[in-house]
Amino acid sequence: LASKVQTAKELGEDRIRSIIIKHLGRDPREILGYGDDAIAFRLDGGKVLVAHTDVLVGSTDILPGMNPFYVGWKAVVMNVSDIVSKGAKPLSLLFSWGIPRDLQSRNISKIAEGMGAAARKYGAYVAGGDTGEANDLFLAGTSFGIAQEKELLRRSGAKPGDILAVTGKFGLTSVGYKILLEGFRAPIYVKRAALKAVYAPSARLKEGLVAAKTRGVTASMDCSDGLARSLHYLSKMSGVGFRVTNVPIAEEACSFASMHLLDEAELALYQGGEEYELILCVERDAWSRVYTAIRASGGKLYRIGEATPEKKLLLERKDGSTQKIEPIGWEHFKKWH
Amino acid sequence: LASKVQTAKELGEDRIRSIIIKHLGRDPREILGYGDDAIAFRLDGGKVLVAHTDVLVGSTDILPGMNPFYVGWKAVVMNVSDIVSKGAKPLSLLFSWGIPRDLQSRNISKIAEGMGAAARKYGAYVAGGDTGEANDLFLAGTSFGIAQEKELLRRSGAKPGDILAVTGKFGLTSVGYKILLEGFRAPIYVKRAALKAVYAPSARLKEGLVAAKTRGVTASMDCSDGLARSLHYLSKMSGVGFRVTNVPIAEEACSFASMHLLDEAELALYQGGEEYELILCVERDAWSRVYTAIRASGGKLYRIGEATPEKKLLLERKDGSTQKIEPIGWEHFKKWH
Repeated sequence: LASKVQTAKELGEDRIRSIIIKHLGRDPREILGYGDDAIAFRLDGGKVLVAHTDVLVGSTDILPGMNPFYVGWKAVVMNVSDIVSKGAKPLSLLFSWGIPRDLQSRNISKIAEGMGAAARKYGAYVAGGDTGEANDLFLAGTSFGIAQEKELLRRSGAKPGDILAVTGKFGLTSVGYKILLEGFRAPIYVKRAALKAVYAPSARLKEGLVAAKTRGVTASMDCSDGLARSLHYLSKMSGVGFRVTNVPIAEEACSFASMHLLDEAELALYQGGEEYELILCVERDAWSRVYTAIRASGGKLYRIGEATPEKKLLLERKDGSTQKIEPIGWEHFKKWH
Repeated sequence: LASKVQTAKELGEDRIRSIIIKHLGRDPREILGYGDDAIAFRLDGGKVLVAHTDVLVGSTDILPGMNPFYVGWKAVVMNVSDIVSKGAKPLSLLFSWGIPRDLQSRNISKIAEGMGAAARKYGAYVAGGDTGEANDLFLAGTSFGIAQEKELLRRSGAKPGDILAVTGKFGLTSVGYKILLEGFRAPIYVKRAALKAVYAPSARLKEGLVAAKTRGVTASMDCSDGLARSLHYLSKMSGVGFRVTNVPIAEEACSFASMHLLDEAELALYQGGEEYELILCVERDAWSRVYTAIRASGGKLYRIGEATPEKKLLLERKDGSTQKIEPIGWEHFKKWH
């Protein structure tokens, strides 16, 4: 029997990850388990070290027109977001840089400036790193932070009946991609908001830390992989389904959807990504406490549905019809295809 | 005045690092400071978190004939080495992978296997990571470990009069590079030892941990950048010079040097690199204690010279002549040129 040689392109990202995980072995001391946003290890005094690595690759992750300052900025935000989604306060970041020979000095400076500015926004610094020559620009970051073990937020704790909520409105990165990658037109105020969302995102630091303190949040993750795909991860890790009744859409994305006759819910669920809003599952009894705490910290919390015992993901439309939420999103067309 | 646009290639690695560091800002909570092998942060109970990132890039760091298993192996060793050189016990590793579209499934498996095997050799696992499509294969690792703050080994503590020592013999990686990259011939027993040194290196875990416990080691680093260059870093960070009188050379490297009429000391100082021996500076009064402790743990320690008040690096030859040790090495021709 001839064995077929498969390439990375044919395998796709999910199967590549499975192959890697299978060969690495499983550390019994690691608390969160494969499939969560970060790794966590016990320290003294009831604390845990939470760490995460995320890489930004020039040829696949840098959008047209992106200022090098925001390349550095975004590389930090994507790393910070995954540890704050676990309720960990950022301690520090490290970056390994892959630098093409022809990258200009001023662009190196701007990337580093953007990194420094974003790190300080979240109370940390990029404290070290490594550089190597590479054909592709890449910024491989690691963020680490400290959480109380009792407060650690996981992907795996949601229970049927929990309220499903998000920390912000959706749709702007979808609009940004449509403008930048598909040539859609938009009025200036829409374009400005959409490009800000894709170029200069924010991580939800205070929301993550406050959510952890309430002890009423059963599961948490960011939705950098897009809302639909992130909901599927959360469903799989928690063993629950979700009924989504109402996704908050940014006003500019509503205008854009009307203008181009696009479906708002589809924009929000499938065509976005690299949105760093947190998805939280909240115990029904704790809802008003969690809501009040996040609002008091200056954050926002929108109830979008609930967790269900049946492991299905359903979108309930305003007209009463329901449809399945598919596990696809931005990553689906961006990478490995 | 026209300002000249400089590229990464023209800047070179050291100036690139300076530019990056200048723009990142300095975290006052970080203990070791720029220029050391790792970063360190205080935890509870007198402990410190030590972390390091090191990237292996396919187009510049993978030697001809290197089995993918050892690509993964080496990516772990280079990350572990820098934290054990600080006296920290490895806790965990993370890797961001850049994967070219045509990389074969079996090679992905082998790289992951090599990572897993190397990590377990040092009492840890690769507990997580990220993957992205890239034009260049890269493995950007982060290692972290825990040390007692009082025992933390730095690059910056050497004092004049300290004994300079290394944990192993030199010359084998130089021979390996000459065979693989410059077409030198060698008898099979030399070739085998040299290729083992470049393909399947080891980090000096027990030596680092034991050295830290003795409290008699004033400075420590690994010599992955080559012996001469590493001595220069240690000199700069500690504000001392070194007189080197005797570098231990592996027997196979001696044979190779004789055969090709090469200078042994030059092989060891300038033409090696990616050797993960530790360079230790040891208080004169503590020498026999440190030596005994490392020998008792199964490690080796060779006295190669001493630290001097004058910040010069000198090699004293057997014939009594002395010459300056230049700050050059393997990296000098490998990267950014």
